[in-house]
Amino acid sequence: MHKDTLAEFFGTLVLIAFGLGVVAQTVLSRDANGSFLAINLCWGLAVMLGVYASGGVSGGHLNPAVTIALAVRRGFPWHKVPVFVLAQVAGAFAGAALVFAVYHDALTAFDGGVRQVDGAVATAGIFSTGPQPFLSLMGGFIDQMVGTALLMIGVLAIGDRRNSGPPAWMAPPLVGGLVVAIGMAFGYNAGYAINPARDFGPRLFTALAGWGPAVFTTGHGFWWVPIAGPIVGAIIGAVAYDLCIGASLEGRGEQA
Amino acid sequence: MHKDTLAEFFGTLVLIAFGLGVVAQTVLSRDANGSFLAINLCWGLAVMLGVYASGGVSGGHLNPAVTIALAVRRGFPWHKVPVFVLAQVAGAFAGAALVFAVYHDALTAFDGGVRQVDGAVATAGIFSTGPQPFLSLMGGFIDQMVGTALLMIGVLAIGDRRNSGPPAWMAPPLVGGLVVAIGMAFGYNAGYAINPARDFGPRLFTALAGWGPAVFTTGHGFWWVPIAGPIVGAIIGAVAYDLCIGASLEGRGEQA
Amino acid sequence: MHKDTLAEFFGTLVLIAFGLGVVAQTVLSRDANGSFLAINLCWGLAVMLGVYASGGVSGGHLNPAVTIALAVRRGFPWHKVPVFVLAQVAGAFAGAALVFAVYHDALTAFDGGVRQVDGAVATAGIFSTGPQPFLSLMGGFIDQMVGTALLMIGVLAIGDRRNSGPPAWMAPPLVGGLVVAIGMAFGYNAGYAINPARDFGPRLFTALAGWGPAVFTTGHGFWWVPIAGPIVGAIIGAVAYDLCIGASLEGRGEQA
Amino acid sequence: MHKDTLAEFFGTLVLIAFGLGVVAQTVLSRDANGSFLAINLCWGLAVMLGVYASGGVSGGHLNPAVTIALAVRRGFPWHKVPVFVLAQVAGAFAGAALVFAVYHDALTAFDGGVRQVDGAVATAGIFSTGPQPFLSLMGGFIDQMVGTALLMIGVLAIGDRRNSGPPAWMAPPLVGGLVVAIGMAFGYNAGYAINPARDFGPRLFTALAGWGPAVFTTGHGFWWVPIAGPIVGAIIGAVAYDLCIGASLEGRGEQA
Repeated sequence: MHKDTLAEFFGTLVLIAFGLGVVAQTVLSRDANGSFLAINLCWGLAVMLGVYASGGVSGGHLNPAVTIALAVRRGFPWHKVPVFVLAQVAGAFAGAALVFAVYHDALTAFDGGVRQVDGAVATAGIFSTGPQPFLSLMGGFIDQMVGTALLMIGVLAIGDRRNSGPPAWMAPPLVGGLVVAIGMAFGYNAGYAINPARDFGPRLFTALAGWGPAVFTTGHGFWWVPIAGPIVGAIIGAVAYDLCIGASLEGRGEQA
Repeated sequence: MHKDTLAEFFGTLVLIAFGLGVVAQTVLSRDANGSFLAINLCWGLAVMLGVYASGGVSGGHLNPAVTIALAVRRGFPWHKVPVFVLAQVAGAFAGAALVFAVYHDALTAFDGGVRQVDGAVATAGIFSTGPQPFLSLMGGFIDQMVGTALLMIGVLAIGDRRNSGPPAWMAPPLVGGLVVAIGMAFGYNAGYAINPARDFGPRLFTALAGWGPAVFTTGHGFWWVPIAGPIVGAIIGAVAYDLCIGASLEGRGEQA
Repeated sequence: MHKDTLAEFFGTLVLIAFGLGVVAQTVLSRDANGSFLAINLCWGLAVMLGVYASGGVSGGHLNPAVTIALAVRRGFPWHKVPVFVLAQVAGAFAGAALVFAVYHDALTAFDGGVRQVDGAVATAGIFSTGPQPFLSLMGGFIDQMVGTALLMIGVLAIGDRRNSGPPAWMAPPLVGGLVVAIGMAFGYNAGYAINPARDFGPRLFTALAGWGPAVFTTGHGFWWVPIAGPIVGAIIGAVAYDLCIGASLEGRGEQA
Repeated sequence: MHKDTLAEFFGTLVLIAFGLGVVAQTVLSRDANGSFLAINLCWGLAVMLGVYASGGVSGGHLNPAVTIALAVRRGFPWHKVPVFVLAQVAGAFAGAALVFAVYHDALTAFDGGVRQVDGAVATAGIFSTGPQPFLSLMGGFIDQMVGTALLMIGVLAIGDRRNSGPPAWMAPPLVGGLVVAIGMAFGYNAGYAINPARDFGPRLFTALAGWGPAVFTTGHGFWWVPIAGPIVGAIIGAVAYDLCIGASLEGRGEQA
């Protein structure tokens, strides 16, 4: 395996371990040791830690939508895209397995050992996202598209030293803050996956680990929305940043 | 359009997308996925992200009161003030439209499709601010004036490398922290607009998008207070900083 | 007035405006727009902002206990101590007046216009601190002494570039974090004044602004505890840091 | 005593003072002045402050599991391991005594002066950790092992300038954020000790200070789990980081 593929696997594992961990803690403790605010903050820290773990080797994408948008707009080599995406999904799957192992006793205490996708003691939502009852599939697509467009705008802005971006070693906590903001502002409709690997890897894990195929039919077959929406949104976000800001910075050097 | 005008539009759009997004999420989820604390924290992140998105091109004012105070006290060219202000209001209008689009299904589930300015399922407060019942218009003016004076003092202090300010790439999260503090300490009376564009752009959007002209009459015609108060306050804050601190730093170089 | 005295006045005013502001917002909104957590976080931001506003001119002590400990252990000129302390108390008094002005309507809505020191609609606690019912005066003294000793240890450690401290421009948010930690861990007994000016200036203001002399007799005459305890504690903390750490760093240069 | 041993004692004292302080405040105020979120945030700040207090002298391990893993994987001298561990446990013991002194009046108001390990007014949990009722000893071991493996991965990543790590002076708040994330995501099962000294030092203190030997038998004799689990986990985490990331960075210089 190439160095950067392994780093993407490892970084995404770290991201998903913390990200699913906080949802597990919140759900299984029935909010005693967690809250929606804690979920927001911890996903931000999860991104920070995943990027620190991998950034110097692979760039720390940890998200197929980011990888694809960087291929479309920043010359990331297309031939690396499939292996990066596969590594990200595999890392997310492994992260889900780790959280499952740590919270195995707690899961069984919570649901009596019968893993459920819907209902009062459902736990599939620890691993993958779903829509609010009022949300149409089109509404879900818009939600994921806009959330990921804002993610990509923020990632490009923070990483742009011709603009007001910081040195690379300061970017991870700031990108973490970006993800906190997305979760607080655009997390209500559908749980802000904004990352196909984050959603699909753990969903696949739950399908195999006891929750069964219902994880793919729940929410009117919502599973493809956090895959397609983010990919479209990341490209739109990158284009928007380049049109509104990048074009004004062409030829400019890095700022002090 | 000039480069910096476009950057102000884009940065304010980002600011308002996150800022109104968190209020929408909190109101529409009936506090399940949000809280006043989340609103405070997310507005701080919104400012950070808006400034990172635009700072290297336009300076990242994103606020007519800041632009005017910089013209009065820091030599920002007066001829640019009207276009900056227009771009900021247009960006805030566009940000409001984006939040409206993302939360369209949720709004309708919340209010049954009838947009309301006051009452149990009112949603105008997602977009623009209003006073507490006990607050006089003079009290509202003082509130906005003091809040924005403190904003301007903080912005000038953080940006002043002769004082103890950081490199420019570290300023956005610190200015974000400043806005968090204003929201926590001076957010009760009237929702801490402290920015004419932040309040007027979305208010105009709601007037046109179904809430109607009542958004301009609610709160005893409060709409002009978050315009006039911040402009006066930002100038006062800049003068206060310069009198108490700036004058002591004249002729001094940047610190290490 | 000397430059650095004016800066101490101004920085303490900023500190106290945000610090009392968040308590006012939390008390007067009956926790709707505030919480003990918000109080903790906002006092940290208040310290950050007060230090950024004044640090480059006066060093940003903003606290008589810090000034005295720096005179005892770091060669701060003793002849400046009285004017610094006076400027800090005056700044805190002015900050209290500002918060009183902003929340005048809200105070009257809350207490019907009768300012009270104790009871269900007491508001003196917005401005100055008091002990829990179970706390002895000796317990209060220990509480203030330990809290301020930890403050001083943290301030010296963060400011010590021979140790692992950051550049001066990064110290203010870290010292803010230190104050957040003190509020979270040592804020229960007596409201973590840990600063004689922070407590005495606003207490004096309330005595004159309608609450009357009871602010000096409440809590079994607690008022002197947040003055004496912090001064003793800051000196102990500085000595402890120098014995355990500073002595090991003598002769060492700044780290990279 | 050697300089670095004294620094480890002092840094761990600071860590544990803030760490146990926030749990004491939360428990004794019955959540009025604390919360699980405050506990998470304050432990992060506690780590930051402990490392700033000691990092330049001893490296700021403050955790026997970290010291041992650094001996196994980073050449930390084995002959120093016993004295470091002893200093860390002694520092944690002293930190527990400090918190006990500050909250002595509050403890007695809470439990009537009878220190209890289990039951409605138990307070042993302020000082040392314990398992949820559903958790098996094996589950507890896995929990501590995984939590500390993630701690070690994060510590090595943040400290690795060949990867995307920051200058040393920026590491403490980031490692603090790492500990916040562990508490939010892996704190439910058993209170995230992830540090043998953090758990054993205060447990020993409570055994001697009135809670008695029951602190060693509670939770089916859980006391050894937060000792053994972290040591194994830290080594696993260091190996995992080196296999997945460190090997890819060999021979590479520090990044800008």
